[in-house]
Amino acid sequence: MRAIIDYLQQNQARFINELCDYVRFPSVSAQSEHSQDLRACADWLVEHCRGIGLEARLCPTQGHPIVVAKTPAPKTKSSRRPRFVVYGHYDVQPPEPFDLWKSPPFEPRIAGRSLFGRGACDNKGQNLAHFKAVEAYLKTGTEFPCDLIFVIEGEEEVGSGSLASFLKARRAELACQAVVISDTGMPAPNLPALTYALRGICALELTLRGPARDLHSGIFGGTVDNPALVLCQLLARLRDKNGRIAIPGFYDDVQPLSAYERKQLARPPFKERDYRKLLGVPQLFGERGFTPIEQRSARPTFEINGLTSGYQGEGSKTIIPAWARAKITARLVPNQDPIRIARLICAHLKELCPPTVKLELEYSRGSQPYLVSPTSAQAQAALRALKTAFGCEPVLLREGGSIPIVNDFKKWLRADSLLLGLALPDDNAHSPNEKFDLDCFAKGQIMSACLWQELAGIAT
Amino acid sequence: MRAIIDYLQQNQARFINELCDYVRFPSVSAQSEHSQDLRACADWLVEHCRGIGLEARLCPTQGHPIVVAKTPAPKTKSSRRPRFVVYGHYDVQPPEPFDLWKSPPFEPRIAGRSLFGRGACDNKGQNLAHFKAVEAYLKTGTEFPCDLIFVIEGEEEVGSGSLASFLKARRAELACQAVVISDTGMPAPNLPALTYALRGICALELTLRGPARDLHSGIFGGTVDNPALVLCQLLARLRDKNGRIAIPGFYDDVQPLSAYERKQLARPPFKERDYRKLLGVPQLFGERGFTPIEQRSARPTFEINGLTSGYQGEGSKTIIPAWARAKITARLVPNQDPIRIARLICAHLKELCPPTVKLELEYSRGSQPYLVSPTSAQAQAALRALKTAFGCEPVLLREGGSIPIVNDFKKWLRADSLLLGLALPDDNAHSPNEKFDLDCFAKGQIMSACLWQELAGIAT
Repeated sequence: MRAIIDYLQQNQARFINELCDYVRFPSVSAQSEHSQDLRACADWLVEHCRGIGLEARLCPTQGHPIVVAKTPAPKTKSSRRPRFVVYGHYDVQPPEPFDLWKSPPFEPRIAGRSLFGRGACDNKGQNLAHFKAVEAYLKTGTEFPCDLIFVIEGEEEVGSGSLASFLKARRAELACQAVVISDTGMPAPNLPALTYALRGICALELTLRGPARDLHSGIFGGTVDNPALVLCQLLARLRDKNGRIAIPGFYDDVQPLSAYERKQLARPPFKERDYRKLLGVPQLFGERGFTPIEQRSARPTFEINGLTSGYQGEGSKTIIPAWARAKITARLVPNQDPIRIARLICAHLKELCPPTVKLELEYSRGSQPYLVSPTSAQAQAALRALKTAFGCEPVLLREGGSIPIVNDFKKWLRADSLLLGLALPDDNAHSPNEKFDLDCFAKGQIMSACLWQELAGIAT
Repeated sequence: MRAIIDYLQQNQARFINELCDYVRFPSVSAQSEHSQDLRACADWLVEHCRGIGLEARLCPTQGHPIVVAKTPAPKTKSSRRPRFVVYGHYDVQPPEPFDLWKSPPFEPRIAGRSLFGRGACDNKGQNLAHFKAVEAYLKTGTEFPCDLIFVIEGEEEVGSGSLASFLKARRAELACQAVVISDTGMPAPNLPALTYALRGICALELTLRGPARDLHSGIFGGTVDNPALVLCQLLARLRDKNGRIAIPGFYDDVQPLSAYERKQLARPPFKERDYRKLLGVPQLFGERGFTPIEQRSARPTFEINGLTSGYQGEGSKTIIPAWARAKITARLVPNQDPIRIARLICAHLKELCPPTVKLELEYSRGSQPYLVSPTSAQAQAALRALKTAFGCEPVLLREGGSIPIVNDFKKWLRADSLLLGLALPDDNAHSPNEKFDLDCFAKGQIMSACLWQELAGIAT
């Protein structure tokens, strides 16, 4: 590894220039006027891959092409060589609003140890770190301990619409022991992190229908139920005053946090006062018996995302609304199943619903929660690589949101994803003045170089 | 009275022609392109008043002019002659949608005993009946037992915006013992009605504010309260399962229904099945212990008129909304006061509201409930006039809505309003194919002729 680390250190200035070249492409997938820029960026990436010795090609999709690049076949044929996929994306979020940027979003600017530009952190800098690690192996003549396939897509910021069918069609070619993704965060420069769990989601739309049309509340009020009030009365009963979700069976499948996990989740710094100010709430509220970090990442939730009923304009309108609607979501944790949770919610609401209104419940979408056991061999290998690269003890994180592609990899490749994010909390992903920390870039390269040794070591 | 009734009968065909002339004016106050038609209609009415012997003039307002017409001064000066105001309006609702009319809305058509046309019932036919009664007195040389002032406005269908200032400015000239208004309904042709009570209203807007902006429900969900859910939990507690409003003090000032009133309110026919079908609700719901007619007219209510929070578009959006809002109204009965009720609602909501959100409550508007005691001398006089004209026992009604002008008359003229409506339930007021029943027209004239005798009799 000495030669690899030396190579990485010696070439850091060039790598930063290459990252600047990469960031200069305005590869904004949400804006159709940038489709040529996405293509140019993908072409640049293919050329870059070939330059470092990978076999690279563009795979067309219904949307933007996916860059696929592989490490060369080993000189000595080894039938038991493990294979891993590295996932990333070359598309970026829209840069708007432009006036909040201190320098143009597609003209990379270095200040101190930060490289500013749209996509610097999310995700160009992070996926380039993995390419640079491979380059170090190949250019120093170090034998690569496994086969790697890079899958760098161009539609992540618009929902990865082509990825699932791509994985399905090429699942044999992409069969692997694990998928490595650097597209999440780390709490602080001295706290490298493995994100080992994600929450799932179950999204529903609840509609209550009362009278056939909005009724005059003077003429008819008093004789008919009010769908908006019934909606409130139903939803009010779904969460108790301790923040517990009051739906029978809701917690049945929740895998409890282990003492080890709770200890790990307590390690990142958390200041309640700062957090409260960040959100602008008068007071925090969560499920009793859990820390805020646990509440927002390791415990399920029930939220109303939207309410619609009756008159919403200026002033007042004296009606009994014909219907009332709520968009609701439950965040799920391992091992809750979105379909089962939807059924429980539906059954409970139907039981609570009075005969004065008609209840309609529509399942909008769901995604499974995700968990790689933090004590699994792969997770421990990843933690060792992080520790070596950053020189300090990594933390284990759970992410409160979902990363749908992780479920796609699980479904089509039957592979777990190791989420080794290099983004710092102040990197402004999706916001103006996005940046990437150049130390994270450099340490990420070392982490990647170590990771293949660690993973290959346990896979054989 | 014989001469008067004979005169009315002999001239009925001409009166119907005059009503057709009146209906031909497309006096749609909501549509500015009709302002000349409103003026022409008002001019026609002034001419008509003069033709029957009234002193009539147009009073300009900020909007459409008000027609004021007075019975001539008596030949023998009587200092104690009572005075009454007859209120009506010459403006009409928009006729749209045109394609649902079986004949053009401003081309009156007679079929059987119905005169079809926009405004035939609401309110031209009803106010013309009163003019015809006065004509009968004046043309038969019968001494008129009181002074009458007709106030026929042109903005009723758009909120009577000029009426209050008109009444305020002319309150000396208009001082009277009572205001007579035929602009409400009667349950059936053989059930003439005095509407003796109206509900008031208290309208509020409740806003709960949580985080400073919509939050990602994955990243933050579990640690902050959800304003939409808190809104539901607050509103859910304001009405119990028996349909009682669960706000401390809410019923304190409610004047109970007397046995006489309950008996009267039970007289109009009410078929629950038909009513349920009319509204299109699966089941009726109201305050336990009261009939539907009492619930919708003589009992206070609490309604949510509108709900707004978070995302309301297609699909789902995984946010914790920054705020949630409800438009709420309470219908009030005598002697509830809208300001006091608003204070009670506000105090109760503040007590229930958790510290995790900020509560804002805005008082939108209120109007007082209204009551003329049905056993008062004026009400009994009105009932006698109805009985004589229709030849059957009249009913006493309460109206569940508000008629704001009644409060204006009370405020500026300190006079009660006698609501002697001639509209039948199938007259389609505000709807296509509005009609007026020609028997109601004829009997309304007799009722009016009798009314002045009855009212003058008790006033002196």
